[in-house]
Amino acid sequence: MSAFVPVPGDRFSFGLWTVGWQASDPFGSATRAPLDPVESVHRLAELGAYGVTFHDDDLLATEQDRDKAVARFRTALAETGLKVPMATTNLFTHPVFKDGGFTSNDRGVRRFALRKVRRNLDLAAELGAKIYVLWGGREGSESDAAKDVRAALERYKEALDILADYVVSRGYDIRFALEPKPNEPRGDILLPTIGHALAFLSRLARPERFGVNPEVGHEQMAGLNPVHGVAQALWHGKLFHIDLNGQRGPKFDQDLIFGHGDLANAFFLVDLLEHGGYEGPRHFDYKPARTEDAADVWASAAANMRMYLILKAKSQAFREDREVAELLEAARVPALGVPTLDPDESLDDLDSDSFDAEAAGERGYHFTRLNQLALEHLLGVR
Amino acid sequence: MSAFVPVPGDRFSFGLWTVGWQASDPFGSATRAPLDPVESVHRLAELGAYGVTFHDDDLLATEQDRDKAVARFRTALAETGLKVPMATTNLFTHPVFKDGGFTSNDRGVRRFALRKVRRNLDLAAELGAKIYVLWGGREGSESDAAKDVRAALERYKEALDILADYVVSRGYDIRFALEPKPNEPRGDILLPTIGHALAFLSRLARPERFGVNPEVGHEQMAGLNPVHGVAQALWHGKLFHIDLNGQRGPKFDQDLIFGHGDLANAFFLVDLLEHGGYEGPRHFDYKPARTEDAADVWASAAANMRMYLILKAKSQAFREDREVAELLEAARVPALGVPTLDPDESLDDLDSDSFDAEAAGERGYHFTRLNQLALEHLLGVR
Amino acid sequence: MSAFVPVPGDRFSFGLWTVGWQASDPFGSATRAPLDPVESVHRLAELGAYGVTFHDDDLLATEQDRDKAVARFRTALAETGLKVPMATTNLFTHPVFKDGGFTSNDRGVRRFALRKVRRNLDLAAELGAKIYVLWGGREGSESDAAKDVRAALERYKEALDILADYVVSRGYDIRFALEPKPNEPRGDILLPTIGHALAFLSRLARPERFGVNPEVGHEQMAGLNPVHGVAQALWHGKLFHIDLNGQRGPKFDQDLIFGHGDLANAFFLVDLLEHGGYEGPRHFDYKPARTEDAADVWASAAANMRMYLILKAKSQAFREDREVAELLEAARVPALGVPTLDPDESLDDLDSDSFDAEAAGERGYHFTRLNQLALEHLLGVR
Amino acid sequence: MSAFVPVPGDRFSFGLWTVGWQASDPFGSATRAPLDPVESVHRLAELGAYGVTFHDDDLLATEQDRDKAVARFRTALAETGLKVPMATTNLFTHPVFKDGGFTSNDRGVRRFALRKVRRNLDLAAELGAKIYVLWGGREGSESDAAKDVRAALERYKEALDILADYVVSRGYDIRFALEPKPNEPRGDILLPTIGHALAFLSRLARPERFGVNPEVGHEQMAGLNPVHGVAQALWHGKLFHIDLNGQRGPKFDQDLIFGHGDLANAFFLVDLLEHGGYEGPRHFDYKPARTEDAADVWASAAANMRMYLILKAKSQAFREDREVAELLEAARVPALGVPTLDPDESLDDLDSDSFDAEAAGERGYHFTRLNQLALEHLLGVR
Repeated sequence: MSAFVPVPGDRFSFGLWTVGWQASDPFGSATRAPLDPVESVHRLAELGAYGVTFHDDDLLATEQDRDKAVARFRTALAETGLKVPMATTNLFTHPVFKDGGFTSNDRGVRRFALRKVRRNLDLAAELGAKIYVLWGGREGSESDAAKDVRAALERYKEALDILADYVVSRGYDIRFALEPKPNEPRGDILLPTIGHALAFLSRLARPERFGVNPEVGHEQMAGLNPVHGVAQALWHGKLFHIDLNGQRGPKFDQDLIFGHGDLANAFFLVDLLEHGGYEGPRHFDYKPARTEDAADVWASAAANMRMYLILKAKSQAFREDREVAELLEAARVPALGVPTLDPDESLDDLDSDSFDAEAAGERGYHFTRLNQLALEHLLGVR
Repeated sequence: MSAFVPVPGDRFSFGLWTVGWQASDPFGSATRAPLDPVESVHRLAELGAYGVTFHDDDLLATEQDRDKAVARFRTALAETGLKVPMATTNLFTHPVFKDGGFTSNDRGVRRFALRKVRRNLDLAAELGAKIYVLWGGREGSESDAAKDVRAALERYKEALDILADYVVSRGYDIRFALEPKPNEPRGDILLPTIGHALAFLSRLARPERFGVNPEVGHEQMAGLNPVHGVAQALWHGKLFHIDLNGQRGPKFDQDLIFGHGDLANAFFLVDLLEHGGYEGPRHFDYKPARTEDAADVWASAAANMRMYLILKAKSQAFREDREVAELLEAARVPALGVPTLDPDESLDDLDSDSFDAEAAGERGYHFTRLNQLALEHLLGVR
Repeated sequence: MSAFVPVPGDRFSFGLWTVGWQASDPFGSATRAPLDPVESVHRLAELGAYGVTFHDDDLLATEQDRDKAVARFRTALAETGLKVPMATTNLFTHPVFKDGGFTSNDRGVRRFALRKVRRNLDLAAELGAKIYVLWGGREGSESDAAKDVRAALERYKEALDILADYVVSRGYDIRFALEPKPNEPRGDILLPTIGHALAFLSRLARPERFGVNPEVGHEQMAGLNPVHGVAQALWHGKLFHIDLNGQRGPKFDQDLIFGHGDLANAFFLVDLLEHGGYEGPRHFDYKPARTEDAADVWASAAANMRMYLILKAKSQAFREDREVAELLEAARVPALGVPTLDPDESLDDLDSDSFDAEAAGERGYHFTRLNQLALEHLLGVR
Repeated sequence: MSAFVPVPGDRFSFGLWTVGWQASDPFGSATRAPLDPVESVHRLAELGAYGVTFHDDDLLATEQDRDKAVARFRTALAETGLKVPMATTNLFTHPVFKDGGFTSNDRGVRRFALRKVRRNLDLAAELGAKIYVLWGGREGSESDAAKDVRAALERYKEALDILADYVVSRGYDIRFALEPKPNEPRGDILLPTIGHALAFLSRLARPERFGVNPEVGHEQMAGLNPVHGVAQALWHGKLFHIDLNGQRGPKFDQDLIFGHGDLANAFFLVDLLEHGGYEGPRHFDYKPARTEDAADVWASAAANMRMYLILKAKSQAFREDREVAELLEAARVPALGVPTLDPDESLDDLDSDSFDAEAAGERGYHFTRLNQLALEHLLGVR
């Protein structure tokens, strides 16, 4: 079906590090050559993407001179019209960050990390990025003896407060999005889930500047349901950005193509994003498999967008199906939107309720039929 | 060693439902007779416990008349001196709660749940409980089509705001503690981890009345490190209560004896509780195994307290060991307590840092030796 | 689409305990009344099922007199034409089995378990069952001190050898299928995966009488891929029976409707069963959710069969798609069927190979495109 | 305590790739310089190790000329007296193996893999290795469409049969040990657990030449209990070798120091190895953490051996404790060694049993006390 062709209006974006991943892993060396960011920009634009994102170091993949690399990247953006909706900093590859960036036990490292972020913040602002992602992949520990977690959170807060002050002082129109992950590369990473990040940012000096950037697979690594987590982030007004990809349960971080992991969950996630008020980019943070060649890389990039568009169309059809509406009603799903107390009621007023708990306990919710109907939409058999 | 004998000053407490668990499980019927709460109170007091906690329905285990049951329970408390530091409501056993209590799609159920909590809040206040735990084990879903998570969180907030108003209006000296759990009995439970609960309570109308009641095993069911989570709760000033037990990784909720799951993690958790400023009860929420008889139940209750005391003694020795102190220093653990910027510094001042990232990347943190030393204290070989 | 209507020729079967599950769980009491097995037989037949299966105790759900219960069940079978392709024994519900049946530390229990199985084997033979499933849900431990695993395996073997002798001595046309599960209700269950069961049966006295009965969700509770495990069982010639259902990763045993867990994996599993030489029943071992009423139970039973038929149709279309065939070829999937050495070659002959490892390392396998194509068939967008 | 000093008689061995790991991971580059295998041999010998093991490519870490590298290695062995009890082949690092070695869809790769193994088999035999480990880390898939698992197992068998023939034809005194792993680097790896490997080898042409090499952490990545798995391998007579390390549940492969993961489980594993008839090397397959420097590497190597010796001493004390013996008796652990039927009994004879199932269901097994006692030995408080 030719209908599922992405256009910039779909707001799809990709990290340079995704298509550019050379596929070295803990047990194997690279299977693909470095990719020139300029080529990535052009190819992504041709495929219908809206934006491209980057870590500071990503720009240097094939050109070591930073100024030249930035200039070439700008030119490519101008030629293609691709936007830079988001940028981020690599605080994990270099050995100096082996015990973390903002929360390294080594104060010198913490100061170095701040400088590294600031430099790329300036570039992000120049390129028009509105979101700056902070993934603290090395902020964590393997031994509980090795890290004073409360002190680490205090330093984390210190660093983010400093960065928010900086952004405000410079007048940058940039907000920060914290990206949670439970583990890998550290045994335990600080702010391991959407919830921990949401809680943490509520204690920052400028909480309005901070939200979350959930990654589908990261939640699934903890056996959590991304739809639930993203919905909570939306409820807090804190879904600033999102990383779409796939994962098959608690194991190493797979970064599969979006929809190539838990398919039904991806369907409901698209439904939530499309109808839950999220306006930001649909950002894919995946890795083309190590088995694939350079051409496969672009096929895999296209597959992410195509999957999203297919699921979006199905979500629309699901919502327009009258039988679905009836079953939602029967399952009392919309009734959850009604406050439990009337406007003028108090807890004491409940005493007058006549409620037959036994009868209510016997009534069915028909969730099974509802789920089956959703899956039949997903499978295209309705 | 006779040293590890619990006394009330240790502030150990047990739920009636723990020692009273009859051991029916998803595949088997009860192996033990119901236990009279009065007997539990006496036995726990004899074993050296400080307190006993209960769900409203727990009091009715062997006496169906609620007033009589409460009277007998009070007498037992008076006879033994046992305290009731915490109480809670059962919003999960009865079929009426099959889709939740505060977030059931059925509005009548939500109102019924509020009434049920109120009644036990009154009793809790009478009995002097300072903490009221809310475990929303049925608040969740199996299908993403069946639950509007944002509406559910709105209803959850409505319920908790109502309850906090009630407590304030009655002048009760009670604070609420939310207990997170990722799943079981629902496929996905709302507020699945410490983080999600901390974030959620920050949006309540009276956040100061709400904290968390983490359960060791619940975090481990999501593969998360309880020491990290509890430390974050402490950092937020929100560790109001704690459920100690054991679990062996992501699987069904095992509720093992404290220390009978991940032993090293239990050691570091005790160290955190003893030195992290937590003042509340050490509450055991475990289940005596289904293989055990009535006498084994009391042996298992005693084992929880004994394990805690053993680990506490080891934590003390670990902290007093000079070699540990040296290694902590070498690992720069205390240095994480030092702010990253000097009082008068700003981000711009970092430009003048001369920092050799290569050299810093080569320096070792010696975490392995530190962890080994901790384990040797734990093993009693130092 | 009216096409997905089950008929007995599809060989769908259900356990009495599935539709009859009353929905009590570790945290809640039953939400549904007991179901008369006779009603189940009639309803399943009306829905298009081929067979019904049972534990000895299932027959007694509403009629305590065993002879009467059996007679009524027989009549229902005769009236509906439903078959009994499989039967099994409940060695887990009664407290006597709390430490196992065949491997209980208590020799009296082990002997009792053997008698209980024998009695139902006789009935199974009478009713024409060809497969007898053995799920040892209580064979296991919570503490490694409590169970001598090697002794347990020796007793397990002893029991199965005795039962096989018995079946042979009676001339029963019955084979046994071992059902693996990693945990729940025990902390660790013996023979936790398909692999362990396959290995174990190779050491029995009559290995030809033994195969496996994998359950989709049980493998997923260990994070394993059921398609891989079932394929290995087929490779061993040991896929005697199969339990189809759904699960969402490592957590408690969910027993979701087939296809309501990992949908893509269910698709590939149907493809394997339909084209891998498996001839036995498609047996659903699921639980209608606790939220559902008596009518929902039958809707859920129907949903299992409908999902299978939908996936079967899609598997057929996938295999008939020329583009798929080309991509399989390009991915060299069929080439794996070609022996690595020619018939007359030996290891020494490989020295003469001229093989460019660098070039081969660069060649792509195009697995991403293949997977995307499979998913598009599944989604019905081709 | 100076008692825990390793000597060669303890039969401790290490892979060159363990201490030599440079600590590059999926998100970071190397933090340590390459280590000369000659230095490793000398250091390990000084620390009290018995043996050293290697992949073919490990020898080339600092010397690219293979003959020179082998010569230097031999000299170091001669100088130190260190043995080479085991060797193995790297079929995973080079891009050519990205879809597997023996089961790559590319026949040329399969042939290349066989040649690579053969070459190192010759060297292994020369160096006196008695065990040859086969870890098929790349034998697997990410998509079920991409791999015909039954064909893959057929090719796997073909390869192993060829290699066994080769070893026999050369008269090498070498047996093979298959090392299972559930995932990483592939999404799903073939032969994912001890069970699958045991089953598979039973179908090889020369099964007597094949056993397993379980890795503690690999089983724990699937949430399985290594003590159960290793016990089953012993029961099959197939525990040819073992990889000791630590892991904290289902997540990426951590390769922690032995005992630094699940401590209680490590204790029971040592108990099993010491008293279960295993005679082979105690081989550590761990990774010194990325945070550690060159000196820490040796401290971490020493920690593995020290942990083993500590646990061994505790296992001995546990077994010699009279109270433990009494409790084992009370828990009827030894009674599981008694056959369920008397020598002259048959299943029919059981009819005469008078067995009170209700009474037996009420009897306690006292497993809790037993486990507590074991833990108190472990903690050194008895």
